[in-house]
Amino acid sequence: MDKQQLASTVNKVLDEMRQRPIPIGISSRHIHLAAADYARLFPAQPIQPKKALLQPGQYAAEQTVTLVGPKGRLNNVRLLGPLRQTSQVEISRTDARILGIAAPLRMSGNLQGTPGIRLISPFAELELSGGTIVAQRHIHMSPLDALILRVSHGDSVAVAIEGSDRRLIFDNVAVRVAPDMRLEMHIDTDEANAAGADAAQAWATLVTKP
Amino acid sequence: MDKQQLASTVNKVLDEMRQRPIPIGISSRHIHLAAADYARLFPAQPIQPKKALLQPGQYAAEQTVTLVGPKGRLNNVRLLGPLRQTSQVEISRTDARILGIAAPLRMSGNLQGTPGIRLISPFAELELSGGTIVAQRHIHMSPLDALILRVSHGDSVAVAIEGSDRRLIFDNVAVRVAPDMRLEMHIDTDEANAAGADAAQAWATLVTKP
Repeated sequence: MDKQQLASTVNKVLDEMRQRPIPIGISSRHIHLAAADYARLFPAQPIQPKKALLQPGQYAAEQTVTLVGPKGRLNNVRLLGPLRQTSQVEISRTDARILGIAAPLRMSGNLQGTPGIRLISPFAELELSGGTIVAQRHIHMSPLDALILRVSHGDSVAVAIEGSDRRLIFDNVAVRVAPDMRLEMHIDTDEANAAGADAAQAWATLVTKP
Repeated sequence: MDKQQLASTVNKVLDEMRQRPIPIGISSRHIHLAAADYARLFPAQPIQPKKALLQPGQYAAEQTVTLVGPKGRLNNVRLLGPLRQTSQVEISRTDARILGIAAPLRMSGNLQGTPGIRLISPFAELELSGGTIVAQRHIHMSPLDALILRVSHGDSVAVAIEGSDRRLIFDNVAVRVAPDMRLEMHIDTDEANAAGADAAQAWATLVTKP
């Protein structure tokens, strides 16, 4: 195989890889906890993994809490592990309305000026002074995925959700590149409902702009 | 003004009208009732308009019911008037999950094979044998609007929701043309949340395909 043939073959493989559907992860309301907040809510109990998530090392824990806002509460809200530097509560706009909390649209970790919320475990209560957000939709990927898809960390891309009567194109989807991350688009339950993304035959694909 | 100048001026006006934002109407869960079902739930009481809707003659009524499904219930669900030939319950996917009712995505009035639901008023209860749907997103318009926008009744179009961090393009939006209808796009609360369409600065516009 000469150089030109090789380049052509590699390009064909890359083109095919670019067509792969992007797996869709639907995020229900959940919380992340800092170690001190965890210790207060679940004293003397290690965090207990219940189910591994697609992203390596991340898991849904056995532990759940109740979220309490000025207008309502939501029970059985799952803790995701492992523990983090800062506690963070991720809810949908629907949830925000039920709780009566004006949670802004933010990327995970960008918590400055976000509203607080009350957490209740079977053992204790805790008032967070901030950290309540609606998560901005985003795609996790490895540096290799980014190379194949021709995008960079911090890019904003458009993604089509195909395969249902509610097909649509999400604009302003954040690209998050990190070593060891798996290719996965994260949307919340409102977005999944609007796109019919929970249908078995639904799939996501990057929209290349003209 | 000669004929050519006139045509050019008319085309400019039409182009400008085509750029007008399409008003967005966000439909919360609601019901329509047939006269017999209304009489059973609200005996000897006339339907009472509370607030006019944008579409001529249509209104939110004072009357509300509770929706009951196998898994949950939703209170204070608004009746829209006037009364219709057939009762119909329009809920979001979020609502469908709360109620435990597998409501399919349908255009209003296309109710064959749709699941039933229990309605409770302050006076009576009623089991509908069908009519529970998630409404397909659609745009109401007059024949003149259709002429200006170059679409026809029954078309499926793409509509961009602009002006928020959650901007997106809804594909498969049904075009509904009828005399006396006002230009208005109807989406449900899941779709509005996913698109940030409740933001004051949000607006909708037809996407013309290349």
